[in-house]
Amino acid sequence: MAEALEERRARAALARLMEPSDWVGLALVAALGPVDALRVATGSIGPGRELEGELRRVLDRQAGGAQQSLLGDALQRWAPRVKDLAPERDLATMERLGGRVVIPSDDLWPPALADLELGEPVCLWMRGDLDQGVPALNRNVAIVGSRDSTNYGNSVTGDMAAGLVHRGYCVISGGAYGIDAQAHRSALAAADEADGVTTMAVMACGLDRYYPAGNEDLLRSIAARGIILAEVPPGSAPTRWRFLQRNRLIAALAGVTVVVEARWRSGALNTAHHAAGLGRPVGAVPGSVYSANSAGTHRLLRDGSATCVTDATEVAELAGPFDATGATGQQEVLADHDGLGVEDLLLLDALPIRQGVSIDKLAAVAGLPARSVLAGLGRLESRCLARQDGSGWRRARRP
Amino acid sequence: MAEALEERRARAALARLMEPSDWVGLALVAALGPVDALRVATGSIGPGRELEGELRRVLDRQAGGAQQSLLGDALQRWAPRVKDLAPERDLATMERLGGRVVIPSDDLWPPALADLELGEPVCLWMRGDLDQGVPALNRNVAIVGSRDSTNYGNSVTGDMAAGLVHRGYCVISGGAYGIDAQAHRSALAAADEADGVTTMAVMACGLDRYYPAGNEDLLRSIAARGIILAEVPPGSAPTRWRFLQRNRLIAALAGVTVVVEARWRSGALNTAHHAAGLGRPVGAVPGSVYSANSAGTHRLLRDGSATCVTDATEVAELAGPFDATGATGQQEVLADHDGLGVEDLLLLDALPIRQGVSIDKLAAVAGLPARSVLAGLGRLESRCLARQDGSGWRRARRP
Repeated sequence: MAEALEERRARAALARLMEPSDWVGLALVAALGPVDALRVATGSIGPGRELEGELRRVLDRQAGGAQQSLLGDALQRWAPRVKDLAPERDLATMERLGGRVVIPSDDLWPPALADLELGEPVCLWMRGDLDQGVPALNRNVAIVGSRDSTNYGNSVTGDMAAGLVHRGYCVISGGAYGIDAQAHRSALAAADEADGVTTMAVMACGLDRYYPAGNEDLLRSIAARGIILAEVPPGSAPTRWRFLQRNRLIAALAGVTVVVEARWRSGALNTAHHAAGLGRPVGAVPGSVYSANSAGTHRLLRDGSATCVTDATEVAELAGPFDATGATGQQEVLADHDGLGVEDLLLLDALPIRQGVSIDKLAAVAGLPARSVLAGLGRLESRCLARQDGSGWRRARRP
Repeated sequence: MAEALEERRARAALARLMEPSDWVGLALVAALGPVDALRVATGSIGPGRELEGELRRVLDRQAGGAQQSLLGDALQRWAPRVKDLAPERDLATMERLGGRVVIPSDDLWPPALADLELGEPVCLWMRGDLDQGVPALNRNVAIVGSRDSTNYGNSVTGDMAAGLVHRGYCVISGGAYGIDAQAHRSALAAADEADGVTTMAVMACGLDRYYPAGNEDLLRSIAARGIILAEVPPGSAPTRWRFLQRNRLIAALAGVTVVVEARWRSGALNTAHHAAGLGRPVGAVPGSVYSANSAGTHRLLRDGSATCVTDATEVAELAGPFDATGATGQQEVLADHDGLGVEDLLLLDALPIRQGVSIDKLAAVAGLPARSVLAGLGRLESRCLARQDGSGWRRARRP
């Protein structure tokens, strides 16, 4: 118990010391475990002779750059933050916010994060309806996109998120304006008492603040009825680096990532590329070729890194077998000529609509022998496509 | 010369006798040549003992169905039309219309049709600006789509067709309402004196009529300044079978086929599938997920049979190396942070915008050693991204 607490405290401190995806720091944790890694990182114990080699081995670096000390650089990088370390204060802050620090040995830890390998976060800070647990990978769909979304993008997002929640999925997004907010909002609105967690917001800043400020009410609702989580500790500002790294968490937590709208350059594309890198399916929503907000999704479709998705059913297909509703996509509507052979098709087209004609005339018009015309008329009649009256044979319409 | 005339006359007659893609008829031509094939087809010479076996060999049919005579059935199929054969009249009609019958030995014959193998038409009926010749496969792009197109589809079609003509391509379509008409119209409007043939209409009916009637003016313009062509002889009505077969000609004549708008079921999808079957690239234009007229193009994108294309440049990329304009697609716009390393990115985000700060403060905020902060500030300053004043270091904006 004391040991578990010590690990939790160490991971919380490491999260404050290191930026997300600090590879040397993560290699240090992998080599020594979090408690000793923190001691080395803060200078309270020396690194030991073998450590530099061990880190290079974990990071798969060649000895070529050996003049440069990976660990020495890292220690200098972390040093300015050592004096401000106060993991107990951070743990207390989370408790006050009704949240916790989650570490890999906890039940709440999402196993899917292991796919990030060395890039797995040292800990997660979480608030929200944690008793329900974090939904499993195949129940999570990320919906991401432009902050300055269009009405079109908002409509698609709203329909898609609601449709996914109705099918039992949880909608993950980044809590930003535009597509993200619409996805969270619609997922909350579509939630039923029985649904469990229907939406999770993965933040690029500490959970003690609501960012962006304009989404405060929405983020409060998610913190109450869904889950908000971050890799960075309370008090952390949302920097560009943290946004980019946050995107990898969204991609790793979701079984499928869908980009609804994205400009030619967009953070949502970064999330999509993380997802593709993890081997997770990526969906992209098509839109007008004249909309700058669809240029990025079309780019994903064009370069083959995403599948075209137009509704929740198609997203659920990408997500795989979790869908239990048996809902189907676009229904095939049978046309008159479906299932007809070539001869019957020729005959059908040869049949006049108003005035009936003779078998011989039909044979000449359709280019068929009279024998085939007779047999074909029988088949068409049985399908209610041809009928005979005083004037001869003519077209009938299916009832 | 007399021999060439005899072949032309025979092919013209065969085109009237047989529907497009009449496999037994085409095998007969392959086995005996057009002149003798016509004699057999009309009963003026007997089929000979070996012919049935030869046809089966050409058609790769097993002897299993040998009780049924392929040729016997075909002869009965053709018989009702024999008495109306008048190839000289059809040749004269074409001459009167300023057109001709084109056969495979003619210079005008598009070599690309050979990719249809046995399905290559026995002849083509052509009208228009024939002295310019039929553009080569890699200069032809087919643009097809819904007859009941939306304003959106019409706009995309117009922009795309004009852009392709400006790049030196010829736009092929089917002369129908909607996307087809828009493609032809825009290609004619974009034509310059020097451009050669900029549009070709492939018809499902005889060239003695303009079908549909509402496109008469447009089709007259194409017949004057472009090319209209058909596989069926003058006087032939546009039946469903002929439309479907016409689609294979569009696909075979074009180096790329683009579907702009198509419903879930649409003739344009048939053209796309013909193109894919011939190994020709297919492009599909994305649109609103709420538009029934884009359901078919999204279906193509989703099942992987088409590449997402949003403008003429992207179509030209699909078409390959013919594009000589050097026009490029969407330009990359460089952002402030492009090309920065991770440390410089962290530093850039740590720089305050208004009030300058010290190196030590920057080191703590960015999580970098002071040495790296100094070096990084130098790099950012040289890119005009950082500047120093009395209060310390702060962010600058690129000029």
